Amino acid sequence: MSRFFSDKYAALTPYTPGEQPKDMQYIKLNTNESPFSPPQSVLDAVRNEAGRLQLYSDPESTALTEKAAEVWGVKKTQILMTNGSDEALNFAFMAFCDTDHPIVFPDITYGFYPVFARLNGIPYRTIPLKADFSICVQDYLGVGANIAIANPNAPTGLALSVESIEEIVKSNPDNVVIIDEAYVDFGGESCVRLVDKYDNLLVVQTFSKSRSLAGARLGLAIGNEKLIADLNTLKYSTNPYNVNRMTAAAGLAALCETEWFENNRKTVCENREYTANALREIGFTVLNSKTNFLFAKSDKIGGKALYEKLKARGVLVRHFNAERIKEFVRITIGTREQMEIFLAKTQEILEEEEE
Amino acid sequence: MSRFFSDKYAALTPYTPGEQPKDMQYIKLNTNESPFSPPQSVLDAVRNEAGRLQLYSDPESTALTEKAAEVWGVKKTQILMTNGSDEALNFAFMAFCDTDHPIVFPDITYGFYPVFARLNGIPYRTIPLKADFSICVQDYLGVGANIAIANPNAPTGLALSVESIEEIVKSNPDNVVIIDEAYVDFGGESCVRLVDKYDNLLVVQTFSKSRSLAGARLGLAIGNEKLIADLNTLKYSTNPYNVNRMTAAAGLAALCETEWFENNRKTVCENREYTANALREIGFTVLNSKTNFLFAKSDKIGGKALYEKLKARGVLVRHFNAERIKEFVRITIGTREQMEIFLAKTQEILEEEEE
Repeated sequence: MSRFFSDKYAALTPYTPGEQPKDMQYIKLNTNESPFSPPQSVLDAVRNEAGRLQLYSDPESTALTEKAAEVWGVKKTQILMTNGSDEALNFAFMAFCDTDHPIVFPDITYGFYPVFARLNGIPYRTIPLKADFSICVQDYLGVGANIAIANPNAPTGLALSVESIEEIVKSNPDNVVIIDEAYVDFGGESCVRLVDKYDNLLVVQTFSKSRSLAGARLGLAIGNEKLIADLNTLKYSTNPYNVNRMTAAAGLAALCETEWFENNRKTVCENREYTANALREIGFTVLNSKTNFLFAKSDKIGGKALYEKLKARGVLVRHFNAERIKEFVRITIGTREQMEIFLAKTQEILEEEEE
Repeated sequence: MSRFFSDKYAALTPYTPGEQPKDMQYIKLNTNESPFSPPQSVLDAVRNEAGRLQLYSDPESTALTEKAAEVWGVKKTQILMTNGSDEALNFAFMAFCDTDHPIVFPDITYGFYPVFARLNGIPYRTIPLKADFSICVQDYLGVGANIAIANPNAPTGLALSVESIEEIVKSNPDNVVIIDEAYVDFGGESCVRLVDKYDNLLVVQTFSKSRSLAGARLGLAIGNEKLIADLNTLKYSTNPYNVNRMTAAAGLAALCETEWFENNRKTVCENREYTANALREIGFTVLNSKTNFLFAKSDKIGGKALYEKLKARGVLVRHFNAERIKEFVRITIGTREQMEIFLAKTQEILEEEEE
């Protein structure tokens, strides 16, 4: 820290992204990326756009936003495209929370929420998940604070129904409810259809997972147009050209690939069920995931040890060193071949443990 | 504005980007973009990278940062790559300014500085440029506040010497001096060589202008490694993957194109001098620009009228509706052909005025 760093941020602990070791080639099941390259049309769109990089990008991402409005069935004024969904989340925390408007979220969820809160000096409170790691809807009814819920939740993979989300939104009419649907395309149910009914609901999605564009950084917020206007005020006060030309082109091309998208998410779901069943067969407890990852624990080996032994064998999964979940690992769903290797290595490790 | 928008931002007036009208094809001399497409190697690098977009980008932008360290002659820990230089500037305002650490900048400069200040609740004071629109160095000596100076300045195009910058940095040892060198490659003198000597100097540059990558969004901050560490704390608390894969690849390829870079900036400087001389010949006052734009006024027509009449003729320049500079227009330097058209249209307009 320099002697000039503002006291406001001196105690800030930043978010820790999943590791990206460069020492060897790993089977990377640790950051919930898609195992599939984007389709050829995305590559072509990007290449084509690269010849115009001397020109600023369209601050309104007009073509992309119009296509997105069609895909999500809302007006284009109800959408804001962002530099990854993290930017959408940060803008939402900034816009709607402050010292008088705290926020609540589950004790076990996306690790960035408390970082956004501390960054922006926002008081927050975590609400414990139930013993089975599901969200207790009752706890959020009339809670009198803004709310952030990842649905499906991470790293648990568990989903709430749209009816439950609606109950929460309805019972907190004077607070904003942020529903982070990063993983919704793998079996969850989106609540985008509620945005016309409730002016306090903001839905955040991403192109990183189901659309294979993690490396392009593209997310979006969908909500009442006044909420979106507020987010735009912040965008135009920080980085009006937040979505670059190549990313906008990639996103637009990706949204046109309906069949590719459907196939990919189907494959991920199939590989997930295959892997979950195989893990259960060798004694793992596996939560009922509606995402592109599994959250699982073995009764034979701790989470940290399993993570380390898998890493030594060239397979990266993610381990969270938090009390309630330290026995678990989070495993991103890759190709069938990757999952076979993961399962074989896991089996090997368990056999070693038994010796 | 929604009923949920935080009072903190309710009065915020965002930055207004240069207009990008879609009604017709303009000769676009209004946003200081390069008239040259990026080189073929950038297109190839981007295309190549697009096939890996399913994977998150490297949060450290390692390859790009290492190359940049070589180009700018500093250590890689002295550089932070950002999503456009606006992100670097916003992080710097956040990191080093707060209610106890105000900031000063010229009354006529990049319009985003007051926006960053208001966004972050930072008290600021503007210091008037001299009557000739140059920065009065004396006014900044021992000023007892953080300082932001665009050097060369925009929209004036005027530059300070490195010696003057050093005086300012030296006389404010307990405050951070941010030197925004967005336009330095067109005849200005960079003060990057001072960053080892002064721990309170932060230099911000961009790939948008001289490297033809405005649409890719790539900027950087260079300074003492503790300052850079502070900016990294903010980056990892907002958007760890701020630079996407394609942009990182484009930036790396662009930094390898030394000859292309030298030729382009030479051509821009030649076209600038040609245009400045032509304007002076028809009675314009033209400031002595060290940038890729000219700031000029005619004694025959006001700035707003000239802007409007040029726009009606298919040429976009930028007009700022601020008291001291409202008689001026800012003209980005394009290709020789574009400047010929601009000059011909301007001549036409002046002749009409005389009738």
